[in-house]
Amino acid sequence: MADGRFSPLPEPFMGKLSNGMDVLVVPDRRAPVAYHGVYYRVGAADEDAGKTGLAHFLEHLMFKGTEQFPEAQFSPRVAKLGGKDNAFTSADITAYYQRVPISVLEEVMAMEADRMTNLRLDEDDVVAERDVVLEERSTRIDNSPAAQFREELNAVFYRNHPYGRPLAGWRKEIEGLSREDALAFYKRFYHPSNAVLVVAGDISGQEVLAMAERTYGKILGDNPPPAHVRPQEPPIRATRILEMSDPRVGNPQFSTYFMAPSYVGEGGEDGPALDVLARRLGNDPSGLLYRHFVRDQKKALSIGAAYYGGARDHGVFIIYGIPAEGVSPEELHGQVMAFLSEFGAKTPSQDRVEVDKKALAGATLLALDSVGALAQSYARTVTLGGSVSQAAAWPQAIGAVTPEDLVRVANKYLDPKTSVTGFLTKEERP
Amino acid sequence: MADGRFSPLPEPFMGKLSNGMDVLVVPDRRAPVAYHGVYYRVGAADEDAGKTGLAHFLEHLMFKGTEQFPEAQFSPRVAKLGGKDNAFTSADITAYYQRVPISVLEEVMAMEADRMTNLRLDEDDVVAERDVVLEERSTRIDNSPAAQFREELNAVFYRNHPYGRPLAGWRKEIEGLSREDALAFYKRFYHPSNAVLVVAGDISGQEVLAMAERTYGKILGDNPPPAHVRPQEPPIRATRILEMSDPRVGNPQFSTYFMAPSYVGEGGEDGPALDVLARRLGNDPSGLLYRHFVRDQKKALSIGAAYYGGARDHGVFIIYGIPAEGVSPEELHGQVMAFLSEFGAKTPSQDRVEVDKKALAGATLLALDSVGALAQSYARTVTLGGSVSQAAAWPQAIGAVTPEDLVRVANKYLDPKTSVTGFLTKEERP
Repeated sequence: MADGRFSPLPEPFMGKLSNGMDVLVVPDRRAPVAYHGVYYRVGAADEDAGKTGLAHFLEHLMFKGTEQFPEAQFSPRVAKLGGKDNAFTSADITAYYQRVPISVLEEVMAMEADRMTNLRLDEDDVVAERDVVLEERSTRIDNSPAAQFREELNAVFYRNHPYGRPLAGWRKEIEGLSREDALAFYKRFYHPSNAVLVVAGDISGQEVLAMAERTYGKILGDNPPPAHVRPQEPPIRATRILEMSDPRVGNPQFSTYFMAPSYVGEGGEDGPALDVLARRLGNDPSGLLYRHFVRDQKKALSIGAAYYGGARDHGVFIIYGIPAEGVSPEELHGQVMAFLSEFGAKTPSQDRVEVDKKALAGATLLALDSVGALAQSYARTVTLGGSVSQAAAWPQAIGAVTPEDLVRVANKYLDPKTSVTGFLTKEERP
Repeated sequence: MADGRFSPLPEPFMGKLSNGMDVLVVPDRRAPVAYHGVYYRVGAADEDAGKTGLAHFLEHLMFKGTEQFPEAQFSPRVAKLGGKDNAFTSADITAYYQRVPISVLEEVMAMEADRMTNLRLDEDDVVAERDVVLEERSTRIDNSPAAQFREELNAVFYRNHPYGRPLAGWRKEIEGLSREDALAFYKRFYHPSNAVLVVAGDISGQEVLAMAERTYGKILGDNPPPAHVRPQEPPIRATRILEMSDPRVGNPQFSTYFMAPSYVGEGGEDGPALDVLARRLGNDPSGLLYRHFVRDQKKALSIGAAYYGGARDHGVFIIYGIPAEGVSPEELHGQVMAFLSEFGAKTPSQDRVEVDKKALAGATLLALDSVGALAQSYARTVTLGGSVSQAAAWPQAIGAVTPEDLVRVANKYLDPKTSVTGFLTKEERP
């Protein structure tokens, strides 16, 4: 087990401003480029019912301007400084970030601090941007049966928790979002005490902390961070199946969702074993499902497993597959469930599991090896309420997973009786 | 078509107090007993996410006392006056009502007005009553697979609208309901302008109005009625199936839910045809489903159709069945869906539909023929935001339904592609 891939990751510098803002720094001497981001502890799961899409809509509006940078001059200014900027919204996180020459870091921090508290929204801008997000929804979801299918599966998977709502928002509700909705959400959630500053680059934690006090530190920390009180999922008592057909579908497919813990939530200690299990079953040629259903039996064109443990309240374990010609998605699904049941009855070999663990840890380390990638990963953990030490110890936790752990978590979580399965098929028009 | 059963119902007296409270009176000379109720325009669908069960919990707490009637003396006082009282909570309505000698009507009105605005809640009472509603939930739902099954079906049927939440509340959320939650809900929704007073008995509308001004009229009407802005259902794009098994189940069953309009909502003009359709397909020996599946084919022990159009935002059309020995619920369901598809392809005979219409109107008129029943029916309509004239014209609307209407609404609403079907089966313990 003495493998470098299972060594702990370097822990970041962690600090806190007097106004409550968290500061996370990953010094990286390799390039004169800095990654700078502000991660807010708010996402689509914090929207009020009936206001879906608001978190993502506000993310768009944050580029519209402040007194200091009116008329959408934020991004052009970053570009002029030799940088690039962007943002993303998830169910739990809304993040704004830039890659900039380290020489302009403090200026960009001042700009980001400015829009944390001085956002200006014209009614015209709001109306125009609403059309933009509606168009985004049309393109990415309404024009894609696969995206609609995921949206429907998700809505059925969560019966009570807001994770069941679409990140983009339901169309009717986006249409109703107003300037007042956006500003109220902004005022409620965009505070230093609800944000994590993350910087990676050729700079020390103390230097960043000083810069941050001079910029973000000017914002009063008079608002306590909003509580994340979200409706939770009641116990699951039924299997759910969803069938959707659309003339635009190419290959039919199935997806099965199982409720699983998130890394930072209750049961998160099973996260590493679930990650290894997904790899073991996984979709590349070394995965059990691939070998059995694609290579040997030729029942599937594609098949795989995925574990998403990076949310605040719940994780999900997904098995998906595209059947081969002449096989129905229902048939493939039935055989896969039977295969999983057999898997749960027999402990895999230690050697096989070690190979998977090394591949998983190796691939992850590779992905973290760029300026900002490790910092982003830590920033997500901290924003979700998780611990940096636990995140740094992730490779060790992967190294400690045993074949018995895989069987245990497979039996614990992959229960078809509490799963949701969707079948997406091509609709044959009469 | 000249049948007395299709004549309009007598319209009630309608008035309004100066504080905005609606007053609805159905004079009834037959007995010295009055039905008196206050219907609030609030129900489980108005609860905030994460606070399910609150509307029903508050209904219980409303019996706990005021300054004037402390220590749960409300019901004992009604009994002492020779009356009986009760209450109910639905997704849209919370109602408190009594049957009392007409001589004490004004006293009871004063009592009900008192608890509209002077509710007192001790922390001890709240904690004790929370145990009562939790116990109610255990008995009525958690101990009943059929009730759990309906709860799960409902949760899957509505993906966004709060009708998907259980009326009783999810257990975990009931456990978290506090005195402050109850009082905040009370203050938000319990106002004269958000209530309908309903009286039936040997008394005129003007007399009730005068009594009401002397009692309810004392309450200031400074709060505008709360808006009913609820998340709406997005377009349905997928068929959903739910499977639940439990060792306590006797006969297996299936239920299929189709989205339908409510009488007071968009598309409500199809309500009468849906009511007649439910009767035509219905579960008694004259219903098509019964004749085919129970009597002739002997595939089912019980089968039927029901239409619920009495909610504010959505109605539901339900087909349900219990298969005969040796028939699986899936098989019965498949055959019923095929039967419905055939039904939608052929117009039934005028004679047959006339018989159903007369039976439906006749049964309804019979049910309305008791002191208070017609008033309750009107009170529900008014509380949901519907029109009394439309409600009075219901028998005429039933009389006007044509065989072509039945085919039209069957094809419009009974689309298996947008349905939710649940299968409840006995779990065989290994």
